[in-house]
Amino acid sequence: MSAEPTLDALVEALRRLPGVGAKSAQRMAVHLLQHDRDGARRIASALEESVARVHHCARCHTFTEHEICAICASPGRDARLLCVVETPADQSALERTGSYRGLYFVLMGRLSPLDGIGPDQVGARELLARAADGQVEEVILATSFTAEGEATAHVLSQALKARGLRVTRLARGVPIGSELEYVDLGTIAHALVDRR
Amino acid sequence: MSAEPTLDALVEALRRLPGVGAKSAQRMAVHLLQHDRDGARRIASALEESVARVHHCARCHTFTEHEICAICASPGRDARLLCVVETPADQSALERTGSYRGLYFVLMGRLSPLDGIGPDQVGARELLARAADGQVEEVILATSFTAEGEATAHVLSQALKARGLRVTRLARGVPIGSELEYVDLGTIAHALVDRR
Repeated sequence: MSAEPTLDALVEALRRLPGVGAKSAQRMAVHLLQHDRDGARRIASALEESVARVHHCARCHTFTEHEICAICASPGRDARLLCVVETPADQSALERTGSYRGLYFVLMGRLSPLDGIGPDQVGARELLARAADGQVEEVILATSFTAEGEATAHVLSQALKARGLRVTRLARGVPIGSELEYVDLGTIAHALVDRR
Repeated sequence: MSAEPTLDALVEALRRLPGVGAKSAQRMAVHLLQHDRDGARRIASALEESVARVHHCARCHTFTEHEICAICASPGRDARLLCVVETPADQSALERTGSYRGLYFVLMGRLSPLDGIGPDQVGARELLARAADGQVEEVILATSFTAEGEATAHVLSQALKARGLRVTRLARGVPIGSELEYVDLGTIAHALVDRR
């Protein structure tokens, strides 16, 4: 379809979505134009509105369309606890547990030196400034338990401890509902050390 | 993120893309807002332009921003051959082979009675009108070799033959580069019957 610049431009644009290759992009374009033109219009306007309105929360760095996000603005939160997560999705997973009443700081990524993502790119400086507000007593590092997430936690932990803050990490252990036989050995070893 | 209607609307809108669930939609939204706002703007404008400009070719039913698509408008094509495919992607696969010089009719789907997609939804009436232009001598049915694609070919074949047209189907057989051991038995049986 080389004589169709508008359609080609749409397929090319859809490829910028993460995880979408040439074939998926073409399938998406055909689906929207054939079956869901209303959906196409909605996606377009939702994207434009989001780009225009959504920015980072001045306190926790997550996405918000307000100056301060709803959680940071909530008076019912315990300002002595600050939980550091990688993404808004991680934050909502923690929120859904209903068992955390402190505040958050969302890194919007994790250290990945090979990809050029250093401490500055994950907002380490903003985190240090945020944690030094005089109210925060404990910083809970809830980055992923992957190599990059662990490295991020290590670097942040050093910097935070140097400023005299109490730093903790989510417990590692055997997930609920799993049989030991199928749990990886590193997890079992950690669960053994951290037994209580 | 229930206090963020703009972001929620974006995630909800992205779920209308085929094959995109709640988690992918959230990942896409965060990726675009964090790393590729320019991409978000491009997707939005490409969608709007496509919805406004792209429609069906008056002759072959594929997507085009002109009255007649480039292939239908090309004088070098053999107007005696009409190849029926399900999607623009199938059409471009045939074009890339470089071995077909006739014209096309793109169904934009296939029969699927359980989903409410009958002959009218796949443009059967338009195909019959198109094939009765006095120039078409042979209709090549190149729908998928799936149950639904075969049913589509069967129904169209009956209708086209009733109008005195020569109807053929793409050959079934063993794909190039495959070892017989790993080819399914139905394919081998067909290749045996159609041996030449």
